This record gives sequence, C-alpha cells and structure tokens, in this order.
Amino acid sequence: MQHAVSYELIKTDPRSRARRGRVITPHGAIETPVFMPVGTAATVKAMRPEQVKELGAQIILSNTYHLYLRPGHEIVREAGGLHKFMNWDGAILTDSGGFQVFSLGALRKIKEEGVYFRSHIDGSKHFFSPETSIEVQNALGSDIIMAFDECAPYPADHRYVKDSLNRTSRWLARCKEAHKDTQRQSLFGIMQGGMYKELRYESAMQIVEMDLPGYSIGGLSVGEPKEMMYDILDSCVEYLPKEKPRYLMGVGSPDCLFEGVERGIDMFDCVLPTRIARNGTAMTSVGRISIKNACHERDFTPLDPNCDCYTCRNYSRAYLRHLFKSNEILSSMLLTNHNLHFLVQTMGRIRSAIEEDRFLEYKREFYDSYGAF
Amino acid sequence: MQHAVSYELIKTDPRSRARRGRVITPHGAIETPVFMPVGTAATVKAMRPEQVKELGAQIILSNTYHLYLRPGHEIVREAGGLHKFMNWDGAILTDSGGFQVFSLGALRKIKEEGVYFRSHIDGSKHFFSPETSIEVQNALGSDIIMAFDECAPYPADHRYVKDSLNRTSRWLARCKEAHKDTQRQSLFGIMQGGMYKELRYESAMQIVEMDLPGYSIGGLSVGEPKEMMYDILDSCVEYLPKEKPRYLMGVGSPDCLFEGVERGIDMFDCVLPTRIARNGTAMTSVGRISIKNACHERDFTPLDPNCDCYTCRNYSRAYLRHLFKSNEILSSMLLTNHNLHFLVQTMGRIRSAIEEDRFLEYKREFYDSYGAF
Repeated sequence: MQHAVSYELIKTDPRSRARRGRVITPHGAIETPVFMPVGTAATVKAMRPEQVKELGAQIILSNTYHLYLRPGHEIVREAGGLHKFMNWDGAILTDSGGFQVFSLGALRKIKEEGVYFRSHIDGSKHFFSPETSIEVQNALGSDIIMAFDECAPYPADHRYVKDSLNRTSRWLARCKEAHKDTQRQSLFGIMQGGMYKELRYESAMQIVEMDLPGYSIGGLSVGEPKEMMYDILDSCVEYLPKEKPRYLMGVGSPDCLFEGVERGIDMFDCVLPTRIARNGTAMTSVGRISIKNACHERDFTPLDPNCDCYTCRNYSRAYLRHLFKSNEILSSMLLTNHNLHFLVQTMGRIRSAIEEDRFLEYKREFYDSYGAF
Repeated sequence: MQHAVSYELIKTDPRSRARRGRVITPHGAIETPVFMPVGTAATVKAMRPEQVKELGAQIILSNTYHLYLRPGHEIVREAGGLHKFMNWDGAILTDSGGFQVFSLGALRKIKEEGVYFRSHIDGSKHFFSPETSIEVQNALGSDIIMAFDECAPYPADHRYVKDSLNRTSRWLARCKEAHKDTQRQSLFGIMQGGMYKELRYESAMQIVEMDLPGYSIGGLSVGEPKEMMYDILDSCVEYLPKEKPRYLMGVGSPDCLFEGVERGIDMFDCVLPTRIARNGTAMTSVGRISIKNACHERDFTPLDPNCDCYTCRNYSRAYLRHLFKSNEILSSMLLTNHNLHFLVQTMGRIRSAIEEDRFLEYKREFYDSYGAF
C-alpha cells in the first residue's frame, strides 16, 4: 500500500540511539529529528505563517478538538482544507482530539463506542469516536493524522492502564478502517501503557501489527518525574519499527528533546515555547530568562547574545521588558518568534551533530550552557 | 534659524484648499497629506515596525505621557532614543502629554506652572509643565515635538476657552524657550480656541508670532458634531501660515481625512484604525465591516476585494472571523495591518488625486463607495 507519508533513515549515531532521518509528506520533506510548533486553533499564536517558515519550521501541529468546535471542520473543508484556510503550505500534523477530550475530566464519559463530552467553550454536548476523529481529520486535510486514543492519567493502576491500552488498540483498528484515502493523509498509531514497561510492550505489539506509516508514544509527560519518562523511553522506543518515524507527543522542553533524541525519537511537539513566550519567558543559550525581572530594566543587550533571530537582532531586553509590562501584543510576537527560533535552531544543531558523530558532545555543551531546565 | 523639520509646498488644488507637500525631517521626507499611525507605547500595536513601513507609513506618532510613565524617558534616552529603542528608523512625532494629562479628569489639577496629576497605572503623583514636556520629548528624540497645551473640553464656555488658550500660548513660549536643540527636533505650536472662531483667530495670531516650523490644530474631534468641526476648520486653517505644515490632531476616520485635506490640512493621526482592528472592525473600500458577524462564517472571499494588502492577499473573512472569535493574537495583527494599509493607501490616492487636479472627484468616488462613516 502506498502511503502519503514515508520515512528515510539517513544515519544512526554510533554511541546512542539518536538518528537522522527524513519524513516525506505531501507538503514537503521534514528533516528529523524535528520540533513541531503548535498551532492549536489554525494559527501558531502571535505569528504570521511565513514567519514560522522563516524560522526553519517545516511542519506544525494543529488540534482536531479545537477546530471541530471552532470554526467547525466543515468550514475548514469548505475553505479547501487547513493548509489553505490558515495560509500554511508546509506539512501539518493533527492530533486526534483524544487528549483534549480526556483532559475535560468531569465533562466527559468514556464508553467502548467513543467519548461523550461537553464543549469547554459553551457546554454543548458532543460525541467523539475513532470514526468521528478520522472524519474530522479527513476534513482538515492534514498530512499526518493521529489515531483516537486514550491517554491514561498518571498515576493510574495496572488494571486501568491495561484496559485502556486494549481499548486504544481496538479504537486504532476502527481508525484504520475509517481512514480511506491513505495516499493523501497518513494515519499514525499511538502507543500507550502508562508507566508499565510490559504494558508499553503489549501496546506496541498490538499497534505495530497494523503496519501504519508512523507511530507515536503517548501517555508520557503527564505529571510523572522526568527520570521515569526517560526510563520508559529507554525500553519502549525500540519496540517501534526502525523504518518508521517515531513521535513523542506533547514534549518540548530542551532537555526532553535531547533525551528523546538520544533514545531514538524523531518528532516532538509542545506548546511550551509559545505559551511561556506569552508569559514573558524566553529560552536562551544560557537558560530561561523572565523578561519581567527588574534586572532587565536598563539592559540594552539582546535577549540572547548568541541568537541571530529577528527579535535578538533588533530589540533589547529593556524594550522587551517594557512591551511585556505594557501588555503590548508585540511582546508576545517577539518572544514567540525567539522561543520557536531557539527550539527549531537547536533541533537543526542536533541534526548536524548526529551527522557529524558528535551528538553526545553537543548535548553536553548545551546542558553546560543552559543550566537548570 | 535652521530647523530640523521643513516644509515644501508642491501643489495646491485649484478647486479646494487641498495641498500636496513634503515635510523634511532628520529621519526622511514625508509626502503630505499624510496619515500617521499611532504607536502609543513605542509600538504600533500588533505590528512589527518593518510591517508599518511596508504599508507605506513614513512617520508614526508616539505618546509622551505613556512613555514618561513607562518605561520612563530616561530609559529611552539611555537606549539611544525612541527610534533605536523601538527599531523604527522613519520619522516620529511625539505629542506633549497635555491631552492625556487633561483626559485624566479628577486625577489632575491645572495651575499656571503646569499640571499636577496621578498616574493612571499606579496612582503615583506627578507634575508636568511645558519644561517637563520638552525635557521628556528631548530625551525621546522624536523628530517633531509638540507644545504642552490645554485641550479644552466640549462644550466649554467662552471665558474658560479664552483663559485656556491664553495660558496655552504662555506655555508655548516656555516650551520654545526650553527647547534648545532645534536642529535635531522641531517644536510645533498648537492652536486652541474651542468652537469659537474668534478665539481660534486669537490663538492662531499668538502662536504664529512665535515663528515655529509647524503648527497643529488641537481641541477638535472632542465630542462636537462633525459639521461643527468642519465649520471651524473652514475658518481656522487659513489663519496658519501657508509655508508651514498644518497638523489636525487626533482625527482619522476616512471622512474626516477627506474633509481635513479639502480644508488645507497636511498631517493627521488617530488610534481609530488600530483600535477598531483589535475590536474586529475593518475599514474597506465599501465601508466598515464587523468580522464577528455571522454572515462571514462561510465567506471565503477577502476582507476587501479591492485591497492588495498582506491580509487580503492571504486570508478569507471566514478565517479572520474564526481568529477573532477564538481571541487569537493573529486577528489583531491581520486586521491592524489591513486598516493601516487602507488609510495609508487612501492618503496616497489623495496625494495622487491632488497632483492630477481631481481631488474632489476622488473624494466623491470614495464617499459613494464607502457609504456611511
């Protein structure tokens, strides 16, 4: 079967599981490992799409749950799909809506057929099933669509996680059945299994059997200690096939990117860089900076002296602090631009380091410079 | 005396008082009549400065009162002045802070020496005098600085307005005395006189005597009917010297721009296009559009079919409505870009029309198309 999305493994690091690859999509090739900026509501917040592309981003993530509720997937379909609607001609990955729906807590009810929930916007009643999720993602027209899964909470007991991952596998089969046009969009499966390695293995075996063009690891970074996440990754990444891309969902702090890459992850997404930007926090080569701090009041140096992004080339910390304290929109625009540039550039350097057999050295340099994460 | 700012009269419309001219500043020439976008807190809200320039804007206005309070004019001075601080290499005009201080109402007290007031941000006590205003504007380094005046409210009785304009003239003399470096920045005087033509005349005679490089008309668009404003302008514009630029303060709805130009005004500023943009309102060739209206839900045409701005080239009304309803920052960015483009382009067309002796025809066409203002 011909898939919309394929993967080329270019090189593997001789001293870790880090790998340099390429994901080919209908909207261009993506050099991996890659960080995908999040554009929840069909916009990477506070950025023009060309600016996102100028940073070097090749793929963005958008949220099915949000777009289903607002503006409604039928409107996006009528607009000619999400790419056209939001003026982004690069690749797009959409999540399945599962994570958002489960995050609604008391507002949702899980059944075998799917999930009944109420909108966080207006309280209206809705139902999402594997079939609904695929239908919505088909309407959006994203290049990579994700299976409708349950992301079990942390902590959760063994029984709960086992039942949940089995249902997730049954739902995956329904997703695969529902998704017809595999040459236009590729469906990725999601491994669950919580913090239980044997359940991760069970989940992996079930989903890999379905021979999908890519797989992701879900249910991590849900409140567990980072060391626990790394420990799970140590075992479970290799349960996934080498010849397919591996995507670690919802993870984006710099240390997690390095640790994920080291363990064989190819794709990451996270709202972290854009969200903290709007709260006045910058990621820099020497660690996080809170621009609201008084020490920046008369600091006329750039946010990050080692950065050549638009923000750092043109504005001082004093100006950025002034904008933030004045609640100016430009503050979010400039800090978002910087933070995304920082992560996208860091990923580019990770790729170069893997190519040049110095990934672990680069990781060490980065950690020494960044300090606390 | 050599002034930082000078004016060239290029052409006068044979059938109205409209004039085509050029204001030369240390940061470039400004073709007039001109609309100046407002960047209150050292940023034209929701725009990168290059984007403001790309629209064709040659000069922006910034607010002395706001910058004095936050971040403080000394910080802007240390940054190398406002142009450098905010990354804008075009011309800048700063107001005097007078209008903002008087707008504080109960929070301020007017004396001969100046105005005692409390900050709208934190309630702290401050004093602004003609000398303070000039000192702050000298620190900001704007190309055109404005005299510290009192903008009398509407309605106001004859006695009050007469006393007020006389004090404004005494304050202007103090401003002129306090402003030393006239080769770096040019001080403009402000005509007051409320809705009384004879007081407008008195005010004009007093300020013109001081031989400043430019003059503005203040105290209009303060709540009076538009017809009253036009009637005052009919008389008072010609009290100002032909060989100096004439600036009508705080006016920016399209009809007011045409009516002002027709009566001999060269410069305008207003927060209107940027403020209504953030509220979801666009100015288009066929009038105002509220993007939140349900009729745009499935409208995949541009905001303005006759517009070639970035927003109209790349996005549909359906998308803009979605962004606005989702409270996305990009909504403010795109609508602000469009509205500023609309006014700046309209001004460019007004200039061409004057050059081609068809200003009144263009005005008629514009009014017929725009509908209600």
